[in-house]
Amino acid sequence: MRLANLNADSERSAALQRYLQVRSDSLGLTRHLSPEDYVVQSMPDVSPTKWHLAHTTWFFEQFVLIPFNKRYRVFDEQYHYLFNSYYVSAGKMHTRANRGLLTRPLVRDVERFREHVDEGMSVLLKQSSPGHELLATVELGLNHEQQHQELLLTDLKHVFFQNPLLPAANPELATPPSAATASHVFEKGRNGIQDIGASGEGFCFDNELPRHRSLLQEHAIGSRLISNAEYLNFIQDGGYSNADLWLSDGWASVQRQGWNRPLYWSEDLAAEFTLGGQRELDQSAPVAHVSYYEADAFARWAGVRLPTEFEWEAAAEALPIRGNLRESALWQPAASTDGCRQYYGDVWEWTSSAYLPYPGFTPLAGSLGEYNGKFMCNQMSVRGGSCVTAADHIRPTYRSFFYPDARWQFLGIRLAKDGAR
Amino acid sequence: MRLANLNADSERSAALQRYLQVRSDSLGLTRHLSPEDYVVQSMPDVSPTKWHLAHTTWFFEQFVLIPFNKRYRVFDEQYHYLFNSYYVSAGKMHTRANRGLLTRPLVRDVERFREHVDEGMSVLLKQSSPGHELLATVELGLNHEQQHQELLLTDLKHVFFQNPLLPAANPELATPPSAATASHVFEKGRNGIQDIGASGEGFCFDNELPRHRSLLQEHAIGSRLISNAEYLNFIQDGGYSNADLWLSDGWASVQRQGWNRPLYWSEDLAAEFTLGGQRELDQSAPVAHVSYYEADAFARWAGVRLPTEFEWEAAAEALPIRGNLRESALWQPAASTDGCRQYYGDVWEWTSSAYLPYPGFTPLAGSLGEYNGKFMCNQMSVRGGSCVTAADHIRPTYRSFFYPDARWQFLGIRLAKDGAR
Amino acid sequence: MRLANLNADSERSAALQRYLQVRSDSLGLTRHLSPEDYVVQSMPDVSPTKWHLAHTTWFFEQFVLIPFNKRYRVFDEQYHYLFNSYYVSAGKMHTRANRGLLTRPLVRDVERFREHVDEGMSVLLKQSSPGHELLATVELGLNHEQQHQELLLTDLKHVFFQNPLLPAANPELATPPSAATASHVFEKGRNGIQDIGASGEGFCFDNELPRHRSLLQEHAIGSRLISNAEYLNFIQDGGYSNADLWLSDGWASVQRQGWNRPLYWSEDLAAEFTLGGQRELDQSAPVAHVSYYEADAFARWAGVRLPTEFEWEAAAEALPIRGNLRESALWQPAASTDGCRQYYGDVWEWTSSAYLPYPGFTPLAGSLGEYNGKFMCNQMSVRGGSCVTAADHIRPTYRSFFYPDARWQFLGIRLAKDGAR
Amino acid sequence: MRLANLNADSERSAALQRYLQVRSDSLGLTRHLSPEDYVVQSMPDVSPTKWHLAHTTWFFEQFVLIPFNKRYRVFDEQYHYLFNSYYVSAGKMHTRANRGLLTRPLVRDVERFREHVDEGMSVLLKQSSPGHELLATVELGLNHEQQHQELLLTDLKHVFFQNPLLPAANPELATPPSAATASHVFEKGRNGIQDIGASGEGFCFDNELPRHRSLLQEHAIGSRLISNAEYLNFIQDGGYSNADLWLSDGWASVQRQGWNRPLYWSEDLAAEFTLGGQRELDQSAPVAHVSYYEADAFARWAGVRLPTEFEWEAAAEALPIRGNLRESALWQPAASTDGCRQYYGDVWEWTSSAYLPYPGFTPLAGSLGEYNGKFMCNQMSVRGGSCVTAADHIRPTYRSFFYPDARWQFLGIRLAKDGAR
Repeated sequence: MRLANLNADSERSAALQRYLQVRSDSLGLTRHLSPEDYVVQSMPDVSPTKWHLAHTTWFFEQFVLIPFNKRYRVFDEQYHYLFNSYYVSAGKMHTRANRGLLTRPLVRDVERFREHVDEGMSVLLKQSSPGHELLATVELGLNHEQQHQELLLTDLKHVFFQNPLLPAANPELATPPSAATASHVFEKGRNGIQDIGASGEGFCFDNELPRHRSLLQEHAIGSRLISNAEYLNFIQDGGYSNADLWLSDGWASVQRQGWNRPLYWSEDLAAEFTLGGQRELDQSAPVAHVSYYEADAFARWAGVRLPTEFEWEAAAEALPIRGNLRESALWQPAASTDGCRQYYGDVWEWTSSAYLPYPGFTPLAGSLGEYNGKFMCNQMSVRGGSCVTAADHIRPTYRSFFYPDARWQFLGIRLAKDGAR
Repeated sequence: MRLANLNADSERSAALQRYLQVRSDSLGLTRHLSPEDYVVQSMPDVSPTKWHLAHTTWFFEQFVLIPFNKRYRVFDEQYHYLFNSYYVSAGKMHTRANRGLLTRPLVRDVERFREHVDEGMSVLLKQSSPGHELLATVELGLNHEQQHQELLLTDLKHVFFQNPLLPAANPELATPPSAATASHVFEKGRNGIQDIGASGEGFCFDNELPRHRSLLQEHAIGSRLISNAEYLNFIQDGGYSNADLWLSDGWASVQRQGWNRPLYWSEDLAAEFTLGGQRELDQSAPVAHVSYYEADAFARWAGVRLPTEFEWEAAAEALPIRGNLRESALWQPAASTDGCRQYYGDVWEWTSSAYLPYPGFTPLAGSLGEYNGKFMCNQMSVRGGSCVTAADHIRPTYRSFFYPDARWQFLGIRLAKDGAR
Repeated sequence: MRLANLNADSERSAALQRYLQVRSDSLGLTRHLSPEDYVVQSMPDVSPTKWHLAHTTWFFEQFVLIPFNKRYRVFDEQYHYLFNSYYVSAGKMHTRANRGLLTRPLVRDVERFREHVDEGMSVLLKQSSPGHELLATVELGLNHEQQHQELLLTDLKHVFFQNPLLPAANPELATPPSAATASHVFEKGRNGIQDIGASGEGFCFDNELPRHRSLLQEHAIGSRLISNAEYLNFIQDGGYSNADLWLSDGWASVQRQGWNRPLYWSEDLAAEFTLGGQRELDQSAPVAHVSYYEADAFARWAGVRLPTEFEWEAAAEALPIRGNLRESALWQPAASTDGCRQYYGDVWEWTSSAYLPYPGFTPLAGSLGEYNGKFMCNQMSVRGGSCVTAADHIRPTYRSFFYPDARWQFLGIRLAKDGAR
Repeated sequence: MRLANLNADSERSAALQRYLQVRSDSLGLTRHLSPEDYVVQSMPDVSPTKWHLAHTTWFFEQFVLIPFNKRYRVFDEQYHYLFNSYYVSAGKMHTRANRGLLTRPLVRDVERFREHVDEGMSVLLKQSSPGHELLATVELGLNHEQQHQELLLTDLKHVFFQNPLLPAANPELATPPSAATASHVFEKGRNGIQDIGASGEGFCFDNELPRHRSLLQEHAIGSRLISNAEYLNFIQDGGYSNADLWLSDGWASVQRQGWNRPLYWSEDLAAEFTLGGQRELDQSAPVAHVSYYEADAFARWAGVRLPTEFEWEAAAEALPIRGNLRESALWQPAASTDGCRQYYGDVWEWTSSAYLPYPGFTPLAGSLGEYNGKFMCNQMSVRGGSCVTAADHIRPTYRSFFYPDARWQFLGIRLAKDGAR
């Protein structure tokens, strides 16, 4: 992440205000939960709600309060062990797969932990003459918290889906209005040498750097996301039983896990589970919760391919950051009603690019160097954010990444193809 | 279980009073818990507290209210699926290993379920002229609930032990007073043909029947349970690294699981985890939380053997039901201070008898026939109840049973040997 | 095993002659194999043919030649590690599950090992004045080798069954003549106090001792083994899909492993795989290759039960040792044509008795004490030998034992029931 | 693979001669084996020797003889099922992980299968006027067979390593002469837009196509492979216990598998297992049998990185194909004695490039399209061939690929770094 890139005259009050806003957003997401809901871990990839709220708080304690405020009093020494996620160089940590075994600290203890850290942060941001490094680390911590806000929701969705009662994580969510899907066309992409990666303005993660030249072949890219109706065609055409369409590892996943539809679809293909509970499948909405293998097989079935992350970025760069993001308060993908090309929001889009370091990539110094770099193997780049991404958290150069068999995130499909048309 | 064995003139009011007492006891055990504590399942053998409270309630709904009261209104149709444990003939059920994935129903929903059923039961027990079968099934349901009261506590202990914070399930529990261990002697056992199994009075489970003749060889049996100090000697003499002392399957467990001390002991052998939190190891108290393999290896190390369940019963039959039971409010084993031989309470005692049907065994009719009989394979009989068994729930003929590698229950060791002395 | 029980005037020449006969029998069983056939281990329970031939030889080297002949030269020091099976006190050993990873020593090396040990044994048995302990240990070694002769064949059957080509381990085996099944009746068993276990004559294993009194209830026992036709009735009546008939652990095995017929039966229930290759299912022959769970479920379906091992022994004791044993050269079960009650041969018969020590049981001293005693947990006693047991290796008191889910041995069903008829 | 790229005037006799040579080479590699050695599969990635010899033969039967010669008589219909590897569209196949369970067909049966197919191929190549597609498919089959020649040796090495006797697969292999390691320098690489991929001459696989432009950043590349001595420094500096050096998935592998040295090194780091048996570790020779994770961690420890596959190709393109290849008859890596930069032979070199399709990649038509394309996920590109690669089978554009945790192939390390020096 770029720590060096804050506006020099950002005022302390703006920093504090943003800090309090982001922190408050986290709690807002859990408004409809009861304490029992905060505890469960439905698979190793998923963390309990309680853990997300505590871990993001630990992040500020560990990387801001302790290094930048010598008088800061740690809330509870044992929380360091419990809520360190994967920063090996920061100390030992509780086993990831066992996060759901902890009934304590209680939700109210975690809330007090948050308050304690928020107070410390307020003091720090108000009283000190905040140096550049402090402000940069706070900004990193807020972006980190926003990432966990998204995870908190997608993890909750997975947890609630395990329950035969199919409860709603948020019973107040509106159902997206019914709308026709816009027609799908392939649009000529930018080719030749293109600048890729974050430029000098605003926050970015270290994995978006350095901005560098990349050579793009002639190609075209889909004007919108693939819809549920289109994905149903793939299913009904036998897509899941035709080995020819699948990568070898993908076919093995299909066989081993018995995949025959997106995660969260009902067996009769008529309904899907959402954060608002079980709902009728919206045929016009973008398909979500498919693995890379399924996205790739769909593209092969359609006779085309997925875009590279560079092709995606070249196309997205010129577009406004607008779409079905968290603030739309739908928390599920929806058909575009205004010609929006859906680059931002709805679903993270699988690209055909392995998640690898950019030429000349240098991770941050210290423990924060573990943030992104050590995951640059075995995963695929995804782009564009989803319906539970905060609008001020996404940008054209933003790279997220998942293992190719991941399905519990909002993950979907945009197509591309070689040649100009 | 014997359904035919109720005192014919038991009054309805007595039945109701007992019903309400047992039901209320269950809730009393959870007095110190928060909602988060009710949710977690730390291994497949363990069930969440919430599940225990709901399952025992379902038992009355399923086997009493529905068959005996045509006007009874089921609380929630979906609870049948969620809270059936293993009664295959009663319908489909939620996967046992996934009980900890359910955040809903909430604790308060389960409490309302309990109230609803308790009201139904009160009406039934007050208004009807309760037939013999009804009263017998209620008595079975109450014994069933008492079994789950014990499981609720041992499961909670296991759940809380997973937590590095080592919380107390009940912070009000007293520490047992320090006391010397009584001397251990072998006492001549009854031999020749002995009557084994429940006789005609009072409730019993079906697996205690029929009372039948059994031939006991000449033997002697230990005058008390093996203590922590004695078990420490075994450890310090290299018991866990001497393959000669172990059954083949036991040695495999030791290797695979890295056992080198009882479950819940600290690595330095100085402390143990209890329902009251982490405490200093009481050297005089009976050793607990050892598997059959460990009990058997200890006996071989001591040059003797474990008793058969028939030898145990022949010795226990004459003794009063007195000991460190749940009502002592210690909820951990303790040295005997009054010459008590510890047959009842403290720990269930491993016997060398496989848990098998008695000659002429007949399970109950219908779904309740699944209660005990279908587990008569691969398990060992244990006897005598523990420090979390209710005093009115134990008797000399009572057979419980566990797989030989189980350690999460209060399970301990009494010795025996061939010959008169 | 009883080491103390040899006829004092047994002559050396007789001992040598028997030694050479048993050793030669082992090689005779592999007459139709090619070197490739000796190598494979199809599951951890199965050992490669080569391993059986070497392990039995190691047994004589380790327990006879080294202790009894100071001038004996070990054939290859590394073989001790490779061919020790489970005698922990005799030294480290190669991991059991990895026996099939060894291409060396070659078959011809193992043959030379056998010759080397046979020469040493010949010298020892000819020249020394063989003491009682020597002769007793040799007798134990020969009984051990006979056990492995049976295992060698049952393991080969399992190995060849993995091969879609379904090859015959012995293409010269005759097909049993077609014959009607004798009628099945329940015969009154001996009850009251009976002497059980080996008496003073002839070889026995330590687990058959001591002879002791056992109390048998009134019962009746089936006049022959259950046939394939009868087992087909159970299948066709839905036996494998009716949970009521099964022990809980058995039902779990049925579900997990997808059992719906005996091992080695073809999917259409019309053929079975034998040591002579794939053959039409002989409806009159005793059913084989069923687990304890299946035997127990069949008995429950039939409204009766399996015999205890004591009931079995009381019935078998009076009968001549006659039946379809290895010398019949069928190597598969067959209908009785001469009124034989099938107690010996055809299949090992599951009993309802857990394999436990007899009262007063004492294992052999030293490493040989590991032979039987350490397996006395989690297994069920089986009785009577099978169609691949040598006739001079079986007797009424002989106890073998298997885990209740074992199916790869010749394991079958005899029924019993309570009461005189 | 390029099927379109044969010299139009290649004569039939040359094709036949080459066919017979490659086929004979395969058998030559197994000269020192006994039948037992051909059977074992030591892990799912490994296939038995017998299987390699049969599968390559099946390839010619399936893709040449059946389609191109209507009168060809299939050798054994069942072999299609047994020896199809992963061509799903060509029909069902035997489970890969179970290849080691088959004792039949015997080695001599497989030899007869080879003779039968060789006769058919000879007839076809002599008599027909071989069309372009036939010759191209034969050439593909021969390259396929050469790949399996390498696998046959590396698989054998793995099989023999499981054996505590540590046998030699080829006892006639010479030990490489002792030699000093040349000095290691970083040499300026070619940058800017470079042409990557196979050009129009000679055979290539489909994954080397199409030749296309790639943009290389300024970089330098190591003048030779990393030696055992250099890797020892990494070990002795604590490389395996310093999480900072490792990718997250790599660190998980280190922990889970207990890696602390290259596969095949002895615990004391003084010896290594080779196809010639156990030998002293040659400090000057290139390190081999390290995973991608280890290669990557080594590079990070050294403060640099691995080359991309494009950087590697740009450097290798100008060099003669010369090095320690299979024909050197060492079959283990060795120090260069003549200034050779070791791009070819010794070890396949891990690159930092994920194995992905080139822009515009099109797989072959039909079943042969499964050859390479379906593996383009989760694997890393490796380059340059090894000490068991045939010299006429390697070229600068040749891409092989392995999962990042693979170690059983000859896999090693070349370094690179950003900037000109």
